[in-house]
Amino acid sequence: MIQRTVLTGAKLLKRTVGSSLYRQFASGHREIPALTKERYPVKRGQFAEVTDGDVSKFKSILGGSSRVLTQAEEIQGYNIDYLGSVRGYSRVVLKPKNTEEVAEILRYCNGRKLAVCPQGGNTGLVGGSVPVFDEIVVSLQLMDKIEKIDEYSGILVCQAGCILGTLEEKVNEKGLVMPLDLGAKGSCHIGGNVSTNAGGLRLVRYGNLHGSVLGVEAVTAEGRIMDLMSNFKKDNTGYHLKHLFIGSEGTLGIITRLSIFCPTASKSVNVAFLGLESYDAVKNTFLAAKRGLGEILSSCEMIDELSLESSTQHFNLQSPIDKYPFYMLIETSGSNVAHDEEKLTTFLENSMEEGIVLDGTVTNEPTKMRNIWKLRELIADSLINDGYCFKYDISLPLENFYDIVLAVRERVGPLATKVTGYGHIGDSNLHLNVSCQKFTPEIYKLLEPFVYEYTSKVRGSVSAEHGIGFLKTKYLKYSKRPESLLLMGQMKQMMDPNGILNPYKVLPC
Amino acid sequence: MIQRTVLTGAKLLKRTVGSSLYRQFASGHREIPALTKERYPVKRGQFAEVTDGDVSKFKSILGGSSRVLTQAEEIQGYNIDYLGSVRGYSRVVLKPKNTEEVAEILRYCNGRKLAVCPQGGNTGLVGGSVPVFDEIVVSLQLMDKIEKIDEYSGILVCQAGCILGTLEEKVNEKGLVMPLDLGAKGSCHIGGNVSTNAGGLRLVRYGNLHGSVLGVEAVTAEGRIMDLMSNFKKDNTGYHLKHLFIGSEGTLGIITRLSIFCPTASKSVNVAFLGLESYDAVKNTFLAAKRGLGEILSSCEMIDELSLESSTQHFNLQSPIDKYPFYMLIETSGSNVAHDEEKLTTFLENSMEEGIVLDGTVTNEPTKMRNIWKLRELIADSLINDGYCFKYDISLPLENFYDIVLAVRERVGPLATKVTGYGHIGDSNLHLNVSCQKFTPEIYKLLEPFVYEYTSKVRGSVSAEHGIGFLKTKYLKYSKRPESLLLMGQMKQMMDPNGILNPYKVLPC
Repeated sequence: MIQRTVLTGAKLLKRTVGSSLYRQFASGHREIPALTKERYPVKRGQFAEVTDGDVSKFKSILGGSSRVLTQAEEIQGYNIDYLGSVRGYSRVVLKPKNTEEVAEILRYCNGRKLAVCPQGGNTGLVGGSVPVFDEIVVSLQLMDKIEKIDEYSGILVCQAGCILGTLEEKVNEKGLVMPLDLGAKGSCHIGGNVSTNAGGLRLVRYGNLHGSVLGVEAVTAEGRIMDLMSNFKKDNTGYHLKHLFIGSEGTLGIITRLSIFCPTASKSVNVAFLGLESYDAVKNTFLAAKRGLGEILSSCEMIDELSLESSTQHFNLQSPIDKYPFYMLIETSGSNVAHDEEKLTTFLENSMEEGIVLDGTVTNEPTKMRNIWKLRELIADSLINDGYCFKYDISLPLENFYDIVLAVRERVGPLATKVTGYGHIGDSNLHLNVSCQKFTPEIYKLLEPFVYEYTSKVRGSVSAEHGIGFLKTKYLKYSKRPESLLLMGQMKQMMDPNGILNPYKVLPC
Repeated sequence: MIQRTVLTGAKLLKRTVGSSLYRQFASGHREIPALTKERYPVKRGQFAEVTDGDVSKFKSILGGSSRVLTQAEEIQGYNIDYLGSVRGYSRVVLKPKNTEEVAEILRYCNGRKLAVCPQGGNTGLVGGSVPVFDEIVVSLQLMDKIEKIDEYSGILVCQAGCILGTLEEKVNEKGLVMPLDLGAKGSCHIGGNVSTNAGGLRLVRYGNLHGSVLGVEAVTAEGRIMDLMSNFKKDNTGYHLKHLFIGSEGTLGIITRLSIFCPTASKSVNVAFLGLESYDAVKNTFLAAKRGLGEILSSCEMIDELSLESSTQHFNLQSPIDKYPFYMLIETSGSNVAHDEEKLTTFLENSMEEGIVLDGTVTNEPTKMRNIWKLRELIADSLINDGYCFKYDISLPLENFYDIVLAVRERVGPLATKVTGYGHIGDSNLHLNVSCQKFTPEIYKLLEPFVYEYTSKVRGSVSAEHGIGFLKTKYLKYSKRPESLLLMGQMKQMMDPNGILNPYKVLPC
């Protein structure tokens, strides 16, 4: 039965999910991970080590010592990733405020052959945002200026260190929305989003960042400022160089500014939360949603039973419906409240009449919508609370979408606390999670390369939206052919001859 | 007053506008243009010339002589561009049927240092698709296999030589639409669309090709086959190499296959044709459409008085409304006929009440919609019929969008037959056209670099969607900075060391 709460003229839904993981390291609640160089077989490159002279130079570039961190306790958070999977031992964190400073830092580091790790909000899940050894961290934290929001053209121009959630608030005030939305929005930086080509929850509606980002400014390893900014959706003047920096995870340059197209905000937002019997029912409901909701479908998420159990239990949340083997969260956004409600109601009534959806609730009340979104967005954090969590972010054909969860569950048996699957079914993107008390080589070996081989067999992608970072370099070959890897290597060599930018990441070792 | 014709359940609108320009050359109706090397100051590169031995080799690669054209009359059409602005004197046209053949041709040409000009439907407007001197033409005409259309995921996989209009018909049959639509669709190839990053009429709704193209297969100058195919919207595994081939106009590789995401077809399509008093009214109507029509707005076109006069007179078409200084064509597509009509009617009633729109007609009857689209799509062809037409395809801020038409009109005075402006106001993209009896250096010098300097001053793009090709290389600097041009040169050098692929194009001479 559909329960409905209607609030006419509902404001745009804002989700702000934070994370207290770092505090957990500090408080001793979570174990500080082993050093990356000890846990993984990786060899330090032939880079120089930071000297006192280098630190003095950085202080002179950054106008004093306040933006040059060198104290161990100040630096700890920049060395450990969000998941606690990797830990570097950088001794210097630099905090430039503008593009010129970034360029000067890189020119100097390149000349000295000092390796550099660019860092945004450090919310990445593949170890791309922290040093592997002692790379100098260049944090974009202080580059958080919003330069322009044009409500007519929908163009936002800002520095790379702006926090996604803050941008969302600011563009909302002008009647616009950010074209991407993700769980980490409370801390992730737009520059990090763009350099990792982050996907997220709205991709089904607004497409990916290669489409939305109109221009970038980036600094290359040699300190060249590439001004590829544009205020236009259409600009066919020569090679489309900005795409080199979108998704190359800081290995070809550091994005310092960008312009992005923000769609008009929807006057009407609705969220439905549905209970279903089987994965097949989920797939059919997605197809029905595409056809019935068409242009107003803005999110289509699948959640399995264990995933919901995890988020509700760990965070003491209440599911608005009874227990089912599968759940779906469907969001619509459109320009007409009555039309959207009619479309959604018709879609749900049809789906329930046909028996593919067993139960459901629909709301456009902001608090209720936020509570439903929390059920989905807190799954990742809740699973980490089991101790350690292996995370796989894969694209799979819809036919085989959920099979891998069953296969892994059988394979790891009682070694895992939970094997769960959830994600953006609207974009064929599954998050497969295996939580356990702690990282052990035993479970690691059962999972990898198994998961990647399985994905490769069905011609899926071994990293749908999280990227390659440090943790997945050796699995790149499961999704990329030798000639692509060769060309990637050539491009890296051309743009960063000394290999100082985010070494040990993205490219196969 | 709004006239309305309603046809419930209107099928998806199909537009098929062809061109008979080539026949006009053959019949002597239009003058065959001067050779490019005579009209423009360009020097032939140090490439080899085609020998009889080369021709024999090509015949052996392509299994006989039927796909190796060497007769002057067979080749003429491949040497002249659509506009009659440029003419090469290639002596050989090759017609491979598959990727392997393209690779073999390029390997051989690269070894022999023979220059190559890839050619799709030869509908480009900047001289990019025909040889400048005697480059060997590699036509993709015979590579027109559709490999897969998956109605569930919306993915189309095909060879690069498929004609856009044919693809549209085929995906329509499965309930999908192509994410791009342009006037030349009756002859342009999807491979050419992708390699020039073609924009077109639906960009305002479905975004650009960097977003829609999921994967490409391309052959590099050295004959390496780059398999960058993907069936997923999300695939963050290493550098996003496919974007190198999108918009580089065949200078970094020849696209041979591709996969593209096709959105679900709309059940309801409506077209409105409006009359307006001024450009300001056009701009305000666009903003009102964005807000009032939101997610169903699928095209937003501006047409000035002279543009409409040209298409109606040359092609004997009837405008559905009286004469006005400006017109707009607004298309909506959505999933619910009643909802869309209500949105459109409300939007138009409000706009007319406020007096920004003076007159208008709305229809969802396929024939009537097609007739309205013809008014817009035939403008380009009609202007060429004046004799010769200088075409500028620029992105400009909406504030200054139409000023340039007035400035140019004043500047060229009676030397021009017509100075008109029309285009995709929804994407800030203006087509400025200057028609005259024939090309003269006098009018050419009045127009260039004036138009480009003007565009550069307002930080616009000197080529919004047509690309750089041969005709615009020297104007690239008005939209691209020196460091971008340097990086473009480095990439070309890396991927095509002998410079055999589409020489004299895109990169500054």
